[in-house]
Amino acid sequence: MARIDGRAPDALRPMELIPDYLSHPLGSTLIRCGGTRVVCAASLESRVPPWLKAQQRTGGWVTAEYAMLPGATHERTRREVTSGKPSGRTMEIQRLIGRSLRSVVELERLGENTFYLDCDVLDADGGTRCASITGAAVALARGLRRGLADGVFLEYPLRELVAAVSVGVVDGEMRLDLCYEEDSRAEVDMNVVMTESGKFVEVQGTAEGAPFSRRQLDGLLELAEHGLKQIFELQRAACEA
Amino acid sequence: MARIDGRAPDALRPMELIPDYLSHPLGSTLIRCGGTRVVCAASLESRVPPWLKAQQRTGGWVTAEYAMLPGATHERTRREVTSGKPSGRTMEIQRLIGRSLRSVVELERLGENTFYLDCDVLDADGGTRCASITGAAVALARGLRRGLADGVFLEYPLRELVAAVSVGVVDGEMRLDLCYEEDSRAEVDMNVVMTESGKFVEVQGTAEGAPFSRRQLDGLLELAEHGLKQIFELQRAACEA
Amino acid sequence: MARIDGRAPDALRPMELIPDYLSHPLGSTLIRCGGTRVVCAASLESRVPPWLKAQQRTGGWVTAEYAMLPGATHERTRREVTSGKPSGRTMEIQRLIGRSLRSVVELERLGENTFYLDCDVLDADGGTRCASITGAAVALARGLRRGLADGVFLEYPLRELVAAVSVGVVDGEMRLDLCYEEDSRAEVDMNVVMTESGKFVEVQGTAEGAPFSRRQLDGLLELAEHGLKQIFELQRAACEA
Amino acid sequence: MARIDGRAPDALRPMELIPDYLSHPLGSTLIRCGGTRVVCAASLESRVPPWLKAQQRTGGWVTAEYAMLPGATHERTRREVTSGKPSGRTMEIQRLIGRSLRSVVELERLGENTFYLDCDVLDADGGTRCASITGAAVALARGLRRGLADGVFLEYPLRELVAAVSVGVVDGEMRLDLCYEEDSRAEVDMNVVMTESGKFVEVQGTAEGAPFSRRQLDGLLELAEHGLKQIFELQRAACEA
Amino acid sequence: MARIDGRAPDALRPMELIPDYLSHPLGSTLIRCGGTRVVCAASLESRVPPWLKAQQRTGGWVTAEYAMLPGATHERTRREVTSGKPSGRTMEIQRLIGRSLRSVVELERLGENTFYLDCDVLDADGGTRCASITGAAVALARGLRRGLADGVFLEYPLRELVAAVSVGVVDGEMRLDLCYEEDSRAEVDMNVVMTESGKFVEVQGTAEGAPFSRRQLDGLLELAEHGLKQIFELQRAACEA
Amino acid sequence: MARIDGRAPDALRPMELIPDYLSHPLGSTLIRCGGTRVVCAASLESRVPPWLKAQQRTGGWVTAEYAMLPGATHERTRREVTSGKPSGRTMEIQRLIGRSLRSVVELERLGENTFYLDCDVLDADGGTRCASITGAAVALARGLRRGLADGVFLEYPLRELVAAVSVGVVDGEMRLDLCYEEDSRAEVDMNVVMTESGKFVEVQGTAEGAPFSRRQLDGLLELAEHGLKQIFELQRAACEA
Repeated sequence: MARIDGRAPDALRPMELIPDYLSHPLGSTLIRCGGTRVVCAASLESRVPPWLKAQQRTGGWVTAEYAMLPGATHERTRREVTSGKPSGRTMEIQRLIGRSLRSVVELERLGENTFYLDCDVLDADGGTRCASITGAAVALARGLRRGLADGVFLEYPLRELVAAVSVGVVDGEMRLDLCYEEDSRAEVDMNVVMTESGKFVEVQGTAEGAPFSRRQLDGLLELAEHGLKQIFELQRAACEA
Repeated sequence: MARIDGRAPDALRPMELIPDYLSHPLGSTLIRCGGTRVVCAASLESRVPPWLKAQQRTGGWVTAEYAMLPGATHERTRREVTSGKPSGRTMEIQRLIGRSLRSVVELERLGENTFYLDCDVLDADGGTRCASITGAAVALARGLRRGLADGVFLEYPLRELVAAVSVGVVDGEMRLDLCYEEDSRAEVDMNVVMTESGKFVEVQGTAEGAPFSRRQLDGLLELAEHGLKQIFELQRAACEA
Repeated sequence: MARIDGRAPDALRPMELIPDYLSHPLGSTLIRCGGTRVVCAASLESRVPPWLKAQQRTGGWVTAEYAMLPGATHERTRREVTSGKPSGRTMEIQRLIGRSLRSVVELERLGENTFYLDCDVLDADGGTRCASITGAAVALARGLRRGLADGVFLEYPLRELVAAVSVGVVDGEMRLDLCYEEDSRAEVDMNVVMTESGKFVEVQGTAEGAPFSRRQLDGLLELAEHGLKQIFELQRAACEA
Repeated sequence: MARIDGRAPDALRPMELIPDYLSHPLGSTLIRCGGTRVVCAASLESRVPPWLKAQQRTGGWVTAEYAMLPGATHERTRREVTSGKPSGRTMEIQRLIGRSLRSVVELERLGENTFYLDCDVLDADGGTRCASITGAAVALARGLRRGLADGVFLEYPLRELVAAVSVGVVDGEMRLDLCYEEDSRAEVDMNVVMTESGKFVEVQGTAEGAPFSRRQLDGLLELAEHGLKQIFELQRAACEA
Repeated sequence: MARIDGRAPDALRPMELIPDYLSHPLGSTLIRCGGTRVVCAASLESRVPPWLKAQQRTGGWVTAEYAMLPGATHERTRREVTSGKPSGRTMEIQRLIGRSLRSVVELERLGENTFYLDCDVLDADGGTRCASITGAAVALARGLRRGLADGVFLEYPLRELVAAVSVGVVDGEMRLDLCYEEDSRAEVDMNVVMTESGKFVEVQGTAEGAPFSRRQLDGLLELAEHGLKQIFELQRAACEA
Repeated sequence: MARIDGRAPDALRPMELIPDYLSHPLGSTLIRCGGTRVVCAASLESRVPPWLKAQQRTGGWVTAEYAMLPGATHERTRREVTSGKPSGRTMEIQRLIGRSLRSVVELERLGENTFYLDCDVLDADGGTRCASITGAAVALARGLRRGLADGVFLEYPLRELVAAVSVGVVDGEMRLDLCYEEDSRAEVDMNVVMTESGKFVEVQGTAEGAPFSRRQLDGLLELAEHGLKQIFELQRAACEA
């Protein structure tokens, strides 16, 4: 069966990364992957969380917050402040973004600073958590470079880039970079977070319907790797822009 | 004393209104006034609030929600979901936006529908509540026109446009459309919400420092009227686009 | 059309101000305006909000809280603690009371102290926010005098009195000091907060139905000024009592 | 040792019960016991809690809510809405008031109605929970009589009056009706809720310091009974007023 | 009428106290009374609540928390975190457990430490608050002994044991240690908390239906005393185990 | 390097599954894996979540809740009700348990019923989420069998068993079933949820320190499979018991 947008099973959606999209944060980007758009901001605060101090760790911290604008979805999404707390899905996503970004940062080089990576979804068409990680990495890279230029830290704290892509089994076929229509009826759904040097930071595979075999797992990992190589190219260009 | 951006005391900041900025909502716009940018979405839900039914009123409802993205300000703004509830400032602003928009809509013509006007600030440089009203009016007008075309209602429910502008006394001088730097040290701060036909929907004047005289009040109202005439031109163009 | 309580359009309701109504707070008053009764207390705490300190401002602070007792209304009003947070209306009112009172206090003279102005409505018959401002001004004046006598501060921090009154357009007629029955069906509703010396602290006019003209705005401001002159007389008497 | 206010160990503080203190609720009273004042309102709502219906019980319900005004205490008391939820102490007290009142009402005679007994403390000087029960009983009695007159129910639902008093051991001496100064340093603290016919609804005795003996328990119960007889006289007068 | 489980009116249910049931807390026990099972843990934290310090009291603190596991009841009990706050019943119970335990501890001997007594109900069949007090006393005694051995404090802080039992009037008969079936239809329900030396810490008697007489009160107190003597035997054995 | 408890790298900790541990729920079990103990209850409610109905799906639902008892950890764990909401970690875990169990249940066969799987940790020593899944599967299997016997559904809804185990890289060595000491310093941490027939339901691998290679991923998956085979034996025995 053909994909709804006519892509080959192993093709990414068109991706665009607009650097310095916002006026105030140290780094920012607008990422677009097909019909998904996310504003990613990397804001610096000159303090660290109290628990970090309590553990007598030196260096800084990187954390992430994620939200959907109400108009990002077909049916309007209720603001989470209305129910008084972030949903389970939101918390899971922001923990994932935070862990992914911290995996490539040398926290000791940050000084007593915290980077907040705010990922706000303007338009949602599947893959918002992966787009958030990919966009946040660019926002952070640009913010770190500016921080270095401003003398906030003395050595560049980013070891390498990190990016994410979704893969899945839809209509019995392994596919790269699922859009919403595919994601919502995927049999298997997997998010792969990888570093520029090709190592895994996170692998999260879930059987939405029937459980999946070892062979399927292997195929999906290869497909993800294939897509991520192209994404790293785009990230590098956006970092240099 | 000259204004920080070199404008004449009675000059507006450059304003831009990009229609249909988002994919999903019935109507949407991105409004830019100088350094302030707000995404305004008009989403339709096919139901009305329970209290409206309880009052046995026929017709629909129009309501608004307002938020700052964390990266919209110089110092990162904490998400309100973190403290579990909207701040007093947020609630005051969204009540004002909702009242302003309802004042120009014939609610009986909406059918059993609610329009949510979501105003999310991407970049803040003063005047975000006025920009939200002005942008939301365009998003609503476009959404209503599309709803009419789709047969959601039989008669166009918008009587006329509505817009808002801030005026104030800064350095002893009456000024139009304050930017953040001016707003934060204004002696008097006033928001004026007006309809296309030149009548007031809201007048909110506040002495931030010393109380103000009747003569000052009159001068500020004239300045607001002068600015609003130009804003209605831009709104009409964005509605037709 | 005659008013429901037979008053002339420019007549206030009978107003009474009982000073020192409570045992514990530094200052307090019970204000009655027609069928509306509000207990106003001015309590002193020997500290200031943390954000004030963070801004390195010297002096003290004045803040307000407002609530309805559940039995104050025809239909019992739910306590706000039940829903876990103050409503938008409550927050708007308490911000207004706080701003109004601060406009006549020299905060630097307060020392590191905060005055809480608690306005609790026993009976509601319209105009509770204006009655709260007028009553709180008396409670504060008496509390400040007592604080001065007790040596809490060395100079009297109150510049002048402040009071508020509502005006509006009802049945096409401009009227002073609306009762609940009038307020709930007013076409235009305006609250005017003024100082003893006749200057404006706040002007908030809202079109509840059709927008209002500049001529109407001018007429309402004159009516308010007329009522406020009489209210200042009563406040001065209560301060001296 | 003499009591701080010179009373005999078995003497009540002066008690006053002002009926119909509020305009809107069906019944209301202001109760004063020495320096303690509580506004008690009995408001009728024409529905019952959902769980009552779920249990298929016929008849109505009686419930209570209790709060301190912030200015009721020497140190200002924080509003509970500020922390988002009633404290443990508040919930314990309002459950006690509700149980006490329900014990003398024939709920089946109420029809599908709920009485809310709102007890709001204006001034606190010890014994606020007992004053609330005693005052709420009068508010309820008056509200029930008015409801009967209005045809809300066909038979008078109140079996008899109910009242409460505190007793305790202070300075080794058994005392009736403790004021705040005594209550805060009592060795044993007991609240006794009794019906007009002399039976117990609640007995709550707590050792604040050393545990108490059976002999002490007996002495305190007699002292409470002695005080309650006088309170029932005052309640009857206020019900007839 | 015979009791549902065939016991004599003055018979306790079989009670078992398993010491050191958990791995981590300083002291713990699993208490079983008939069909009721509660895990009681006494955990030490090396700090005291801020308000204790503010009052400049030396020594430590003892506090309690209580919860039902969702599967402890016939109909699953909703977790309290779901509604965001403990219910009134929970807060009343944990305040009672805390007060009861504090009544037998010399807080000055604890040093700057807090003991948390966590009582989590695995199976509920009536009497969970009494079982919690009885079990928590054993957990605390064992924890204090271990703390003394570890040198956390220099003198043993427990004056004597404390235990609780329920008594009530069911089917017109006075009965000891009510099970759920009895408790839910008791006419009078009383919880008695007593020390090993036979003095009262708390007496809480409530008329669930008709109010009760002085003679009934006396009979119930004797029945409770009879049961508590046996419970102290079991506690002493569990403390020594 | 030897493991702290002397196990071979590919050895499970001793596991015990006590069926029907609680009195009230339809199914229950106590699972012990080394020093970790979790009470798992499967409670039936005769209704389904509203959103399921809104989607017009037939059949029932399976959901899970997870909590730590405060005494389950070395440092006492604060109850989540205290902060008013479940933590991100808790929500992530209960979503994982729910998804895992649903993957082996034919929801259409459940009728309009919801199974709540409550997993409450008595003692925590690593691997609590995996123990919860493994224990909950047994509780659910027993509850479903009893529901079938009671005629709640007509066909047995469980397709096969499901279980989970953790694997990881510690001290550079791949290890099975990490205890707390290992888990807290693992370089890679992976949870594998698998069905009896050897297919994956979830694979979640996280680099806690350095990212991991494809070869490491493969090795960990084999280790998990090796452990899960033994766990399925124990589950089957507990289901039959």
